[in-house]
Amino acid sequence: MALPIGKKMLLAVLTLCALVFDSANGIGFHRSNLYSRTKSILSPGTYRTLYIKTKVDHFSFTNDDTYMMRYLVADQFWDQKGGPIFFYTGNEGDITWFCNNTGFMWDIAPKFKAMLVFAEHRYYGTSMPYGAESYKDVQHLGYLTSEQALADYALLINHMKSTIPGAENSPVVAFGGSYGGMLAAWFRMKYPSVVVGALAASAPIWQFPGETPCEVFYQIISKDYAMSGPGCADTIRASWKAITNLGQTDAGRKTLSETFHLCKPLKTTADVNAMKAWLSETWGNLAMVDYPYQASFLEPLPAWPIKVVCSHLVNLTKSSDLHLLSGISTAVGVYYNYTGQAKCFNISQQGTADLGDQGWNFQACSEMVMPLCTDGVHDMFEPQPWDFNAFAKGCKKQFGVVPRPQWIKTQYGGKNITSASNIIFSNGRLDPWSGGGVTTSLSDSLIAIIIEEGAHHLDLRGSNPQDPQSVIKARRQEMGIIKKWVQG
Amino acid sequence: MALPIGKKMLLAVLTLCALVFDSANGIGFHRSNLYSRTKSILSPGTYRTLYIKTKVDHFSFTNDDTYMMRYLVADQFWDQKGGPIFFYTGNEGDITWFCNNTGFMWDIAPKFKAMLVFAEHRYYGTSMPYGAESYKDVQHLGYLTSEQALADYALLINHMKSTIPGAENSPVVAFGGSYGGMLAAWFRMKYPSVVVGALAASAPIWQFPGETPCEVFYQIISKDYAMSGPGCADTIRASWKAITNLGQTDAGRKTLSETFHLCKPLKTTADVNAMKAWLSETWGNLAMVDYPYQASFLEPLPAWPIKVVCSHLVNLTKSSDLHLLSGISTAVGVYYNYTGQAKCFNISQQGTADLGDQGWNFQACSEMVMPLCTDGVHDMFEPQPWDFNAFAKGCKKQFGVVPRPQWIKTQYGGKNITSASNIIFSNGRLDPWSGGGVTTSLSDSLIAIIIEEGAHHLDLRGSNPQDPQSVIKARRQEMGIIKKWVQG
Repeated sequence: MALPIGKKMLLAVLTLCALVFDSANGIGFHRSNLYSRTKSILSPGTYRTLYIKTKVDHFSFTNDDTYMMRYLVADQFWDQKGGPIFFYTGNEGDITWFCNNTGFMWDIAPKFKAMLVFAEHRYYGTSMPYGAESYKDVQHLGYLTSEQALADYALLINHMKSTIPGAENSPVVAFGGSYGGMLAAWFRMKYPSVVVGALAASAPIWQFPGETPCEVFYQIISKDYAMSGPGCADTIRASWKAITNLGQTDAGRKTLSETFHLCKPLKTTADVNAMKAWLSETWGNLAMVDYPYQASFLEPLPAWPIKVVCSHLVNLTKSSDLHLLSGISTAVGVYYNYTGQAKCFNISQQGTADLGDQGWNFQACSEMVMPLCTDGVHDMFEPQPWDFNAFAKGCKKQFGVVPRPQWIKTQYGGKNITSASNIIFSNGRLDPWSGGGVTTSLSDSLIAIIIEEGAHHLDLRGSNPQDPQSVIKARRQEMGIIKKWVQG
Repeated sequence: MALPIGKKMLLAVLTLCALVFDSANGIGFHRSNLYSRTKSILSPGTYRTLYIKTKVDHFSFTNDDTYMMRYLVADQFWDQKGGPIFFYTGNEGDITWFCNNTGFMWDIAPKFKAMLVFAEHRYYGTSMPYGAESYKDVQHLGYLTSEQALADYALLINHMKSTIPGAENSPVVAFGGSYGGMLAAWFRMKYPSVVVGALAASAPIWQFPGETPCEVFYQIISKDYAMSGPGCADTIRASWKAITNLGQTDAGRKTLSETFHLCKPLKTTADVNAMKAWLSETWGNLAMVDYPYQASFLEPLPAWPIKVVCSHLVNLTKSSDLHLLSGISTAVGVYYNYTGQAKCFNISQQGTADLGDQGWNFQACSEMVMPLCTDGVHDMFEPQPWDFNAFAKGCKKQFGVVPRPQWIKTQYGGKNITSASNIIFSNGRLDPWSGGGVTTSLSDSLIAIIIEEGAHHLDLRGSNPQDPQSVIKARRQEMGIIKKWVQG
């Protein structure tokens, strides 16, 4: 077994867990944003970029500051006489990236004669309440909460309705994926006068303390690998000990650094642990983007990337440490070097200096406390219990913030949400976040849709010739429900 | 007609309008609280006084301060095995006063085997976030918002459920009157997981800009007087000009001061205007507490006090100014001197130095912007248009705060609340605040109840032998609906 990992490391891993979540939107963003800029789905001029002046603090009068929130509008399909507004509740990243990666909204806008609006979440992209000072300290960053963001969105919609001729009576539907899906669902719960319904794709609204066992997330990841190739999960499970073995000596660390083509050689056991965290994150990211076709959401990847990963991990469990790790290195290259451009791998490439990441890390340390853990038996990872105290200590140290782990449940109702209405909760069976999602319908209008071959919000992506039937069916069902909402 | 009143005065009157509202709960409170202390409905030991430590700011992480919020608990009727919790969402005053003046909850608690909880609104009574500094400036006072108060209540309920054996599965019903009724309704809208339903008595949730014409409030008051005695409203309408006439000279002001037994003689025309505002407030207060039996909500009063007032105002419209005002003076004495104890009348007795008043004035200047106006034709008051700019200027000057007139509508849905459920909106036909209330049912579970002979939340008062059939029927209906909610 691996050496016990200290509390500091634990925090790092748990933070990484948060980062894994973020990766779908935030971390990967900067890399992918670059990609989307160079190879955007949308032609220039497809949407307009606008700004609205709004309050930094909607819920107290101690601070009357305002900031400019960015939003994107595409109204070329819109029927001014009653056409709906499809409103993306932006999550933890640059809104142009979400705009480019939510093809479903673009696909269906002409059919619905809908206006598309993508609203940028405060403290991400260019929507910085205090400009370059926004992340300076908790006094500036402390307004980064989901409630403030939802208030931003509600006020934006009311502003649009009162200023755009024809928009006043347009029904508004919220769309969002991942944390954005949580926001879409919560938006409908808290502001039902503003949105008639919400498509909450891959929204783990029940990933909070006491709602979903912390081990589920990594168990789903492990299952994805177990079913994608013979011995695949077992090989990864065995890899940790192999890394530990080699990581104990200078010579071993040198071998590890070379085997994994690391840009910066491993110097200490802390570096070795960081490498493990990097690998864990990679396996998690792959589970989220295990799409059925070549895609570039977080990184450019082949179709069904986990299958490709696993093809490099066949019959390795009984191999020598070095042989096994050589396979792991090749496998991880599927994620980081599918294009063959990478000269070396950078294990600190979780973008810790990146605003988007910092933002999500702060949210995870304040409101969005989502316990994750592993036991190494029912999953393929090293055992890591959930230790809230250590987590809170790390949050205090990193951000000067004290987490409020029970708050989200109080604020948004936890498992007791049946008095809400008109929300679709879609989840892909392959997506680790589906464990904290709503996967059975709660009422006639709180509808769960499961996409058997789906990873993280596959349904929000644009249609693709290689789409499996399950996502085609899910999208059709979603469109039917949305149609009912907008017809009133 | 009266001389034009400047913007400064206008603000004063509008603030007074807010104060009129407050009077039902806040202003009158300190006088009545004294009364309730000396002549409490409840015996000592009827409830326990408790405190919970909670956050000053639930919606940002810039301020991690906490404060002690007071709440009262009476569990002597409670069935620990599933009995419900009736939760009073405290409004702008000392919670012990509401506890003593909400007899309906006490009357029905034994029948429902219910626990009673009365939660004190932050910044009132003893629930001061910053102790004696709470009202110091907008930096301290700015956390006085309805959203923060509702979050306090939600967290309190969750705390009670997780710490009181048997409470976990107890259904919670919110009760409230006036602003407390608005809070009860909003509580159910925003936290449906926390409360199964709400009785919102005399809750003018639609008294906000663009929702109810500003003149309705004073028109209802005028109607109450018009139907309570021949020429009653006309006499009051005529009194303003009489006061203006006399108020123009030193001799006239001396006469006015003597006629009205004022503690402090009128020196200037500004004083005369203040006296008019004081009278307006008095007529408004009387309309709110026009109860069918002797009662002491704001002041000790006879049964149907407006009828008694009007009995002093018969056939005076064609009288001399002095004769007319002499009648007015006697009439106003019904309100301020029913017990015969008052030696003189104090026109500044709107308690401007009083925390409860200050609190509501701040709320009216920040979130709770409720336009009121008069035209002197369809009502019995001097014409006063609604002038938001002047109002905002006054708020800035008094509190350093900028009103957010559209916010409540955005936050709580305005007229578009049909996706909410399980709310009773009860309104008395005599109550001026009924104009901004929900007086027709919006759905099967958003039920309006009208009490024809009811003033301000008569239904929340304890039963009385002189109760008219309309309130007996209303309470019976309310109990039936609440029974359904708690049975689930």
